[in-house]
Amino acid sequence: MSAGYTLAEIAQWVGGTVRGDATVRITGVAGVAEAGPDQITWLADAKYEAQLKSSKAGGVLAPEGFGQTPMPAILCPKPSLAIIAVLQRLAPPIPRPAPGVHPTACVALSAKLGTDVAIGPFCFVGDNAVIGDRSVIHAHVFVGPDTILGADCELWPCVVVRERCRLGDRVILHPNTTVGADGFGYEFDGQRHLKIPQIGGVDIEADVEIGANCTIDRAKFGMTRIGSGTKIDNQVQVAHNVQIGAACIIVAQSGIAGSTRLGRGVVLGGKVGVKDHVVLGDGVQAAACACISKDLPPGSRVIGIPAADFDEWVRERSKVRRLPRLLDELKRLTERIERLEASADH
Amino acid sequence: MSAGYTLAEIAQWVGGTVRGDATVRITGVAGVAEAGPDQITWLADAKYEAQLKSSKAGGVLAPEGFGQTPMPAILCPKPSLAIIAVLQRLAPPIPRPAPGVHPTACVALSAKLGTDVAIGPFCFVGDNAVIGDRSVIHAHVFVGPDTILGADCELWPCVVVRERCRLGDRVILHPNTTVGADGFGYEFDGQRHLKIPQIGGVDIEADVEIGANCTIDRAKFGMTRIGSGTKIDNQVQVAHNVQIGAACIIVAQSGIAGSTRLGRGVVLGGKVGVKDHVVLGDGVQAAACACISKDLPPGSRVIGIPAADFDEWVRERSKVRRLPRLLDELKRLTERIERLEASADH
Amino acid sequence: MSAGYTLAEIAQWVGGTVRGDATVRITGVAGVAEAGPDQITWLADAKYEAQLKSSKAGGVLAPEGFGQTPMPAILCPKPSLAIIAVLQRLAPPIPRPAPGVHPTACVALSAKLGTDVAIGPFCFVGDNAVIGDRSVIHAHVFVGPDTILGADCELWPCVVVRERCRLGDRVILHPNTTVGADGFGYEFDGQRHLKIPQIGGVDIEADVEIGANCTIDRAKFGMTRIGSGTKIDNQVQVAHNVQIGAACIIVAQSGIAGSTRLGRGVVLGGKVGVKDHVVLGDGVQAAACACISKDLPPGSRVIGIPAADFDEWVRERSKVRRLPRLLDELKRLTERIERLEASADH
Repeated sequence: MSAGYTLAEIAQWVGGTVRGDATVRITGVAGVAEAGPDQITWLADAKYEAQLKSSKAGGVLAPEGFGQTPMPAILCPKPSLAIIAVLQRLAPPIPRPAPGVHPTACVALSAKLGTDVAIGPFCFVGDNAVIGDRSVIHAHVFVGPDTILGADCELWPCVVVRERCRLGDRVILHPNTTVGADGFGYEFDGQRHLKIPQIGGVDIEADVEIGANCTIDRAKFGMTRIGSGTKIDNQVQVAHNVQIGAACIIVAQSGIAGSTRLGRGVVLGGKVGVKDHVVLGDGVQAAACACISKDLPPGSRVIGIPAADFDEWVRERSKVRRLPRLLDELKRLTERIERLEASADH
Repeated sequence: MSAGYTLAEIAQWVGGTVRGDATVRITGVAGVAEAGPDQITWLADAKYEAQLKSSKAGGVLAPEGFGQTPMPAILCPKPSLAIIAVLQRLAPPIPRPAPGVHPTACVALSAKLGTDVAIGPFCFVGDNAVIGDRSVIHAHVFVGPDTILGADCELWPCVVVRERCRLGDRVILHPNTTVGADGFGYEFDGQRHLKIPQIGGVDIEADVEIGANCTIDRAKFGMTRIGSGTKIDNQVQVAHNVQIGAACIIVAQSGIAGSTRLGRGVVLGGKVGVKDHVVLGDGVQAAACACISKDLPPGSRVIGIPAADFDEWVRERSKVRRLPRLLDELKRLTERIERLEASADH
Repeated sequence: MSAGYTLAEIAQWVGGTVRGDATVRITGVAGVAEAGPDQITWLADAKYEAQLKSSKAGGVLAPEGFGQTPMPAILCPKPSLAIIAVLQRLAPPIPRPAPGVHPTACVALSAKLGTDVAIGPFCFVGDNAVIGDRSVIHAHVFVGPDTILGADCELWPCVVVRERCRLGDRVILHPNTTVGADGFGYEFDGQRHLKIPQIGGVDIEADVEIGANCTIDRAKFGMTRIGSGTKIDNQVQVAHNVQIGAACIIVAQSGIAGSTRLGRGVVLGGKVGVKDHVVLGDGVQAAACACISKDLPPGSRVIGIPAADFDEWVRERSKVRRLPRLLDELKRLTERIERLEASADH
């Protein structure tokens, strides 16, 4: 990467065409405002167009048909997708432990490590655990006995995955996330809350990414499941026996209570809460801070506490805002009635 | 456990009676839908009765007087309690470090370990810490100096308990939970927020269980206290000097601000917030997402932001929902008054 | 500290004057109710005055001009600031790893450690990381490659700071906090959520304190920034590219979404959510559980979901509470109109 790549080369990566000097060399990527002459930027959003005029970027990824730019442009169908391809080649490398087992790590003899697996310092890998090819286990990670990881997984420091859980290929778990802790289940005997042993596990399918400091509880029986391609932000709580479909987006600090089921492509904004034993259909979207307490059909858009249909909520809010005027109106009507009554008396 | 136990044997554990073939052998427990012929299931709830007809379970724990079942039944007074007794014997064993100190652990010479204590890999146990008999400290746990654990405790990986805290017998702390971090206390001197040293500790009484990624702050002075038998779910925040009574249930992502006091048997649903310096009486129940900002007498049931009496809240909600109709009504009344005024003018 | 300090000595520390026996010896600090004869207490708040009568404290820090006290008093302008000075000398010492590198720690040869740096057991410090003078790194901490810490920092156990982040002087990070995990950024290609590489870092300025189990994400480009002197409580989420000003107070379980900017001295109560790409002016104050979804001018005070001006919210709430009466009134008005209509018919 010493001398970077020309705009002509980059255009090939993204299937775009260069307008302007295609020999400009690029070594990195930056935002419109921050990019320098050896960096490329992109137009993610029309609102950055104004900033582009004063940008010092050496090149810009712009949508086909875009007007003149102060620097050479690569025109391509989807700049926001193209930039990902560029970043995958130009991003500074992420430091990872080298393949092999760090001498300080504690790996059970019965554990099975695939080819080119990297196990960092102070990791614990339990009996009969399986780590798939090329997976990277950063320092201070705990992989419990009988837990199985697919290929190309990445577990960041201080991740804990307890026993008998399963992770598919390319699963990413960010630091301090806990997978497979006991579900929260008790039975009150009149005196004490008796703990119900939680004998299930957690099944995280391929291409799932889970943020930092999340908690994904093991099932009471069977498996808590997170569907393939679902992306979970930081500090999200997934209770026992929850079933999350594929390709969902769950934003930070959301919580999903026990046995609730999310369909495919559900989107929960930040800090959303979902009650236990509820079913959310495919494509349900919940605004930040919503508190969902009942089943929702596919495609529903909800907001508020308790969560209500988005359009209804907007109408109700507007009525509530009219309350002060309503009270004034009522007062005036009362006066008019009084006058009518007075004249009727005559 | 190779050949399991007969239904006759299991009936003895739970004080029940077998109806049907008492010689059926059982090796495990599963839900009604998932259980196979060598597994026992139970009726936790009437809603599972329908599923029972197609269940392949080898036996079922059912309430006394329950009707015919497609498999042999153990009739007992409380199946949901009986299943706990069965699970305690038939659950797959939880893997734990062996008694003794793992060679990689770092235990202060002045620390006192009870009999059959297990200290896992990479644990740190500070000066003068005390670990009670049979307690299990999983990998990567930090037990600070002068901290005292009772007997039969279990600390899961990456738990941090700082100095001078106390845990009673049978306390369970799930992964990545922090006990005894500094309370959030500052004094503004007009320029800067000056840190107030937090010199108290945390006192967690017997039989308390705390979920994963929780934070229980040390007191400014004295002790933050969690009463015996209280159960706390994941990602719960307990601030400095909070006093929680016995046998409370605190669901995930709830937060309790400084110096607040909860009585006995308080139940907070998920994502509940409680203001600082508030007193909640015995048996208070708060619905999920409630935000409590004032004292509540014993037995209160609250909901909403700000939290209000549950029944009042339901009434108020129904009024708000009538607002659109109200506006229509007002419009019609106005028209009627206009007509009356017009006729009065004649 | 064997025999402690006299009230005369303590008065000198805080610029106060003793009233009563200045030779009383003090060895520690405690609250009004808990303090014994060798402890000093202070009047933080008028509400503790009544408790003072039965207090057994050996001395009390009281505001100048305060009336008689049952024990000797040190009169000073601001007892709540004075007590901090006293605590800094009389608090029990916080146990820390000794200066030097613990033999179990794993520190890259290329890392640069300042003078009197303490690195505890099982720490990992990556290539080219820099740890400033006198900084303390407790057990189980991960400091990624190229990350730079200032002087006098304290990182508590299981803190993870990933690569290429910067911490100023005197930064404190409490246990299990994650700094520099990937921001939550994807682009949907119609089939899958493609991960956008997050190539920025995190810049935490001097005198920032961050509670336990927080998550501060690295920027997509550039830096996520936390301004000097800002104090953050436990379980707070700060998303990628957020810019937080100086001297802010962010209470537990709050979350700030991507690219949002907070001015100087902003105060967020517990569990506050702030939308992405929003700008909060200097001194904005948000009540606990508020959900902020739009820009707020400096000095705004907001509450509720969605967050509204505090005074407006109070008015609106009072109107909503009048709804039942409003409905009654409307019913009576309707009856009066009916009577008028009936008499008009005659």
